[in-house]
Amino acid sequence: MEKMYYTQMEAARKGIVTPEMEIVAKKEGRDVAFIQQMVAEGKVVIPANPNHKGLDPNGIGSMLKTKINVNLGVSRDCKDINIEMQKVMSAVNMGAEAIMDLSSHGDTQPFRQKLCSECPAMIGTVPIYDSVIHYQRDLATLTAKDFIDVVRLHAKDGVDFVTLHCGISRNTIKQIQNGNREMNIVSRGGSLVFAWMAMTGNENPFYEYYDEILDICREYDVTVSLGDACRPGCLKDATDRCQIEELIRLGELTERAWAKDVQVMVEGPGHVPMDQIEANMKVQQTICKGAPFYVLGPLVTDIAPGYDHITAAIGGAIAAASGAAFLCYVTPAEHLALPNLEDVHQGIIASKIAAHAADIAKKIPGARDQDDRMAGARRKLDWDAQWLEALDPETAKAIRDSRAPEDDHSDTCSMCGKFCAVRSMNKALAGEYIDIL
Amino acid sequence: MEKMYYTQMEAARKGIVTPEMEIVAKKEGRDVAFIQQMVAEGKVVIPANPNHKGLDPNGIGSMLKTKINVNLGVSRDCKDINIEMQKVMSAVNMGAEAIMDLSSHGDTQPFRQKLCSECPAMIGTVPIYDSVIHYQRDLATLTAKDFIDVVRLHAKDGVDFVTLHCGISRNTIKQIQNGNREMNIVSRGGSLVFAWMAMTGNENPFYEYYDEILDICREYDVTVSLGDACRPGCLKDATDRCQIEELIRLGELTERAWAKDVQVMVEGPGHVPMDQIEANMKVQQTICKGAPFYVLGPLVTDIAPGYDHITAAIGGAIAAASGAAFLCYVTPAEHLALPNLEDVHQGIIASKIAAHAADIAKKIPGARDQDDRMAGARRKLDWDAQWLEALDPETAKAIRDSRAPEDDHSDTCSMCGKFCAVRSMNKALAGEYIDIL
Repeated sequence: MEKMYYTQMEAARKGIVTPEMEIVAKKEGRDVAFIQQMVAEGKVVIPANPNHKGLDPNGIGSMLKTKINVNLGVSRDCKDINIEMQKVMSAVNMGAEAIMDLSSHGDTQPFRQKLCSECPAMIGTVPIYDSVIHYQRDLATLTAKDFIDVVRLHAKDGVDFVTLHCGISRNTIKQIQNGNREMNIVSRGGSLVFAWMAMTGNENPFYEYYDEILDICREYDVTVSLGDACRPGCLKDATDRCQIEELIRLGELTERAWAKDVQVMVEGPGHVPMDQIEANMKVQQTICKGAPFYVLGPLVTDIAPGYDHITAAIGGAIAAASGAAFLCYVTPAEHLALPNLEDVHQGIIASKIAAHAADIAKKIPGARDQDDRMAGARRKLDWDAQWLEALDPETAKAIRDSRAPEDDHSDTCSMCGKFCAVRSMNKALAGEYIDIL
Repeated sequence: MEKMYYTQMEAARKGIVTPEMEIVAKKEGRDVAFIQQMVAEGKVVIPANPNHKGLDPNGIGSMLKTKINVNLGVSRDCKDINIEMQKVMSAVNMGAEAIMDLSSHGDTQPFRQKLCSECPAMIGTVPIYDSVIHYQRDLATLTAKDFIDVVRLHAKDGVDFVTLHCGISRNTIKQIQNGNREMNIVSRGGSLVFAWMAMTGNENPFYEYYDEILDICREYDVTVSLGDACRPGCLKDATDRCQIEELIRLGELTERAWAKDVQVMVEGPGHVPMDQIEANMKVQQTICKGAPFYVLGPLVTDIAPGYDHITAAIGGAIAAASGAAFLCYVTPAEHLALPNLEDVHQGIIASKIAAHAADIAKKIPGARDQDDRMAGARRKLDWDAQWLEALDPETAKAIRDSRAPEDDHSDTCSMCGKFCAVRSMNKALAGEYIDIL
């Protein structure tokens, strides 16, 4: 029997409501017809490869709750699959909606297949990272066909979205060589495409064979995440000609994907001064016709290594409030080292804060409900109720318990003790005498 | 001999350039005449009590670098003066321009005097906190004169600025009693004024005797920091009638202070959804005629106890980029416990990031220089040069060193190893062969 549809977008355009759309509508508290329409228009993607068994699908779009991605994967400096899988499950439990498997060491397929069979979050990959590893051959020796075969391999394994750096071309080489970019290209995948082009003299294979790749993505409903090779790697390079010229190409490539019913996200900066973030989001929305924007940061300063989960939370919150749909987490180890379990934890919390703050700002229905319950619990000095609403109850409780107030004012905390404003107000409004000493 | 001037504002208005204005101009890289004019107009304050010996003065104003304040002080649950002084000096070394001494236990004068003789950062206090402690009498037994005497005591001790909750009145009691505020009043000082009014039946002494207080502040050049008793304590209460009505009164009180040449800052929210922050800053600027805005957060969500340094960094960065001049730090222990040394560290770094990101956004001259140097160091993979530009070099270096790359790619870090984009690009642009395996 002929399949009714290959991709969520195709289904939506044919008027079919898929089980995934139903789940997304329910999760978002929105009408399924609305979700269907947004998927048909490309403004929402539901990355859901049918080969990813056990996926708990999510929608990504600027009018839905902001989603977060966590990058993990085995690498030369951290080879233990079990440690990585532990990080994955911890990330999912903390609320990550997507895991990107950036494995870059050894036989990568077992971990990828494990993810696609065990992990309920959507799975993304960057096939060009894996190409060198998969073939165990140096970059310059790989052919365009080799790259495409890896895309197909990942699609078959059940990957829900793939980052493809299609937007740079041989012209970019000249631009970077002649240009005034402080940091050149800082996208890992982008630099590999660049290096491959420089060494082989060929055109970017992900651009040259884009139609073939789209056919694979259509067959397995793999969402294309158009990588931004030219994302700025420092504030000085932000919103420059390199970046915006690539964005224009990504807009063209978005429409070519949509013509084949392939779902598309567009990746974005990077390192961006706060005052340029909203403009970046608005320009992406017009150039890419509302395709969901997936941002890597943006980091609002370059001088805070060790704290880039915070610089990214500032930028990510502003980006999401201005229209970005999907935030890639950034950990305190960014620019410095492979994140450990604690870094992953810190990175996820910071991203969740940014996403949640943005959802409130853009008035996603129900976004503030949890905050309102927290406020009620605080007014009552009901600590157990506060833990129920806290993003990370264990950490919050541990801080309070480690320095509990020492005596009879145990309804307060050691920050203010009997000076607690909430306590004073509750007494004052009840007409009670307020003892402070 | 008659004094030439009492306050920096008086001097500025008389056309006198004070040594403090010279220092501020030099630090900011601005013309001293510009600083003088801004001080004369009340748009910059230089809190500098002549009794604070050894002060290294700073200017606070929306067109200058954003400054940060750190709250410390001995309390019932942390009585050790030496631990607090250790925190103070660590805060100053990390770049805090102001320390607010919120001591609330025992004899508070020795610590305050120690601060005013040893600490180069400007010192602020909240006299109403100290009143109960100073007299060792319950709040309801204190008189208006008692409160005013404590303001004078702090002024004589050398305090550079005092927070006074002058903006609420007996009318506020009705408003809160009748109102729909979820969190009532969460300002510690505001709640004490409220409770005192409720218990004594009197008008707010800081409002009723405002002129007498201004005379003290004029004599010692103590900058008045107009406290916002009605700052929202949760997102639901943000930008409500209580808050804005108080702001209007703070605007009137600003002009009354300026009439006596007393320098004024205005304190601001609080808990505020991201989309309301800029509006809050703009309204304050018109209502208070450009008086510097000193914000406590704003926190952009209520659900992240344990991480409120991050929620405040998001809000503070947006606030400062929209016109706030001065950020009160928030630590991970906010809402939970008295901050320990590590919390203070985390809170300061987060505030510095917010302030710095905002300075770049509002194009403070030279604000991005350090970022540009960092970018250059990163492009060269020059790690020692990166530590020189890092906000917290020790932490950054420790992260890298704890997980250094294991072999011959030691110029990179364990995040990417040989996949390092910077390494690949440097090789590609030099025409070198790129080995990844």
